[in-house]
Amino acid sequence: MHGSQLRVAYQGVPGAYSEAAAGKAYPNCEAIPCDQFEVAFQAVELWIADRAVLPVENSLGGSIHRNYDLLLRHRLHIVGEVQLPVHHCLLALPGVRKEYLTRVISHPQALSQCEHTLTKLGLNVTREAVDDTAGAAEYIANNNLRDTAAIASARAAELYGLQILADGIQDDSGNVTRFVMLARDPIIPRTDRPFKTSIVFAHDKGTSVLFKVLSAFAFRNISLTKIESRPHRNRPIRLVDDANVGTAKHFEYLFYVDFEASMAEVRAQNALAEVQEFTSFLRVLGSYPMDMTPWSPSRGDEHSL
Amino acid sequence: MHGSQLRVAYQGVPGAYSEAAAGKAYPNCEAIPCDQFEVAFQAVELWIADRAVLPVENSLGGSIHRNYDLLLRHRLHIVGEVQLPVHHCLLALPGVRKEYLTRVISHPQALSQCEHTLTKLGLNVTREAVDDTAGAAEYIANNNLRDTAAIASARAAELYGLQILADGIQDDSGNVTRFVMLARDPIIPRTDRPFKTSIVFAHDKGTSVLFKVLSAFAFRNISLTKIESRPHRNRPIRLVDDANVGTAKHFEYLFYVDFEASMAEVRAQNALAEVQEFTSFLRVLGSYPMDMTPWSPSRGDEHSL
Repeated sequence: MHGSQLRVAYQGVPGAYSEAAAGKAYPNCEAIPCDQFEVAFQAVELWIADRAVLPVENSLGGSIHRNYDLLLRHRLHIVGEVQLPVHHCLLALPGVRKEYLTRVISHPQALSQCEHTLTKLGLNVTREAVDDTAGAAEYIANNNLRDTAAIASARAAELYGLQILADGIQDDSGNVTRFVMLARDPIIPRTDRPFKTSIVFAHDKGTSVLFKVLSAFAFRNISLTKIESRPHRNRPIRLVDDANVGTAKHFEYLFYVDFEASMAEVRAQNALAEVQEFTSFLRVLGSYPMDMTPWSPSRGDEHSL
Repeated sequence: MHGSQLRVAYQGVPGAYSEAAAGKAYPNCEAIPCDQFEVAFQAVELWIADRAVLPVENSLGGSIHRNYDLLLRHRLHIVGEVQLPVHHCLLALPGVRKEYLTRVISHPQALSQCEHTLTKLGLNVTREAVDDTAGAAEYIANNNLRDTAAIASARAAELYGLQILADGIQDDSGNVTRFVMLARDPIIPRTDRPFKTSIVFAHDKGTSVLFKVLSAFAFRNISLTKIESRPHRNRPIRLVDDANVGTAKHFEYLFYVDFEASMAEVRAQNALAEVQEFTSFLRVLGSYPMDMTPWSPSRGDEHSL
């Protein structure tokens, strides 16, 4: 869809899974590594990048609330989504054998996603947490560590000259991470292909608000693909809604809803008008083409970028 | 409520946060350490323990789907809940100063919850992931490691003879973990104090089922405290529902709902009868007294067990 000149900011170093998500969403893009998610947001806000990639949920770990908080504190728009099967490899320097290893380093999440498999492989290693998966591979290569392996992508092996000691070492083969693509401006929603719209809303009190909101969708035959309540008792965060900028508000609950309709459709516009009537805070995070790739168990083919 | 003889299984070693949750729910209970969550379930099923403690959600990390999966694969009942503020300490052997440290060890989740604070403390350390927080403290004590600190509870410091180098090092002071207590038999629901009921339901297809289910609660003025959709496309898990034992079923979505009513109330019974009409899978995980402790920022007072 987009040309090779598109600059996409992601958290991590080359070989990171977020980079793979960027490549799936925008083939031939120029992926820009950032050391934090916040920096990726800023890169887009300051026109250093055109898009940012953000992981928002994992089928085993659930929604990443801290990344939803970032969406709410910034004004970027979701313009796309990508689902990637979680597929980890065990990487080491060429010539290193499993028996030589005394430690495995990776992102804490990746370490825990491979816990049982590492044990089954008969590895007697300490597990060390570092900031990102691909960064772990880079660290081994730069320091010529022959007693250490990294859990990272096959692409990280290629980039940093490591060999793959074991492929597909995640404990659960059906685990999938969902990423969203962010831009300064919303895309023009269309109706010629399946679109999804993500909203966040809140109300101060009242038990039937959620029911009223869902009726706005149900009576228009709009399917929901995600609904989640987020208790928010103590942390009035600086929410940016569609009307006001930067008002810090306090809500007992926030709700995240994704529905299968494009904002170009009249039924979606009408539904949202109704939702706005019932809620004290509403923000459309974005209306964007659905990732229609079937959710199949990880087979590593996502690394052929 | 329960006497000193109650045996409560938890994942981890003494000083673990799950042990603190057990102590909050059942003062003077005998807490039984288990090396895995699955083992804690089995301890109750085999009458080795009377209760099990399970963390199910965290206000920053979200729902722990893999622990919900355990609930669905077993037949235990939720009989209570406890909310604990996340409060971490940096522990080392007596006499060890911050400047001596070369590494910090803890559970991956705890390491990531203290990431920024560790940096702010000016520590130049590697972070190593181990199976649990209190286990990290025990490891330092047993091996007399003077270059290593653990992230764990104040109680772990006490138990393993370590000193607290820094108190309250979690990055976010409003972060709370919710635990549920499990038993072989449900408790008799009452109406003389606030109760909460947790259910899981699924349907094969049809967009308006969720709306119908919520109407069953809304029309009876029953508030929801949690609602969450769980995509489940590829993993038909062996669900245990209220009618059948161990039928493996495949659903595109599961929904988790907690509502503020006791199953002793006629309105709750009627609501569930209606929910059963609309869904193809329904299970009541439990009806139990609500934890009414106010959600205040962590101040460490939960460690005075």
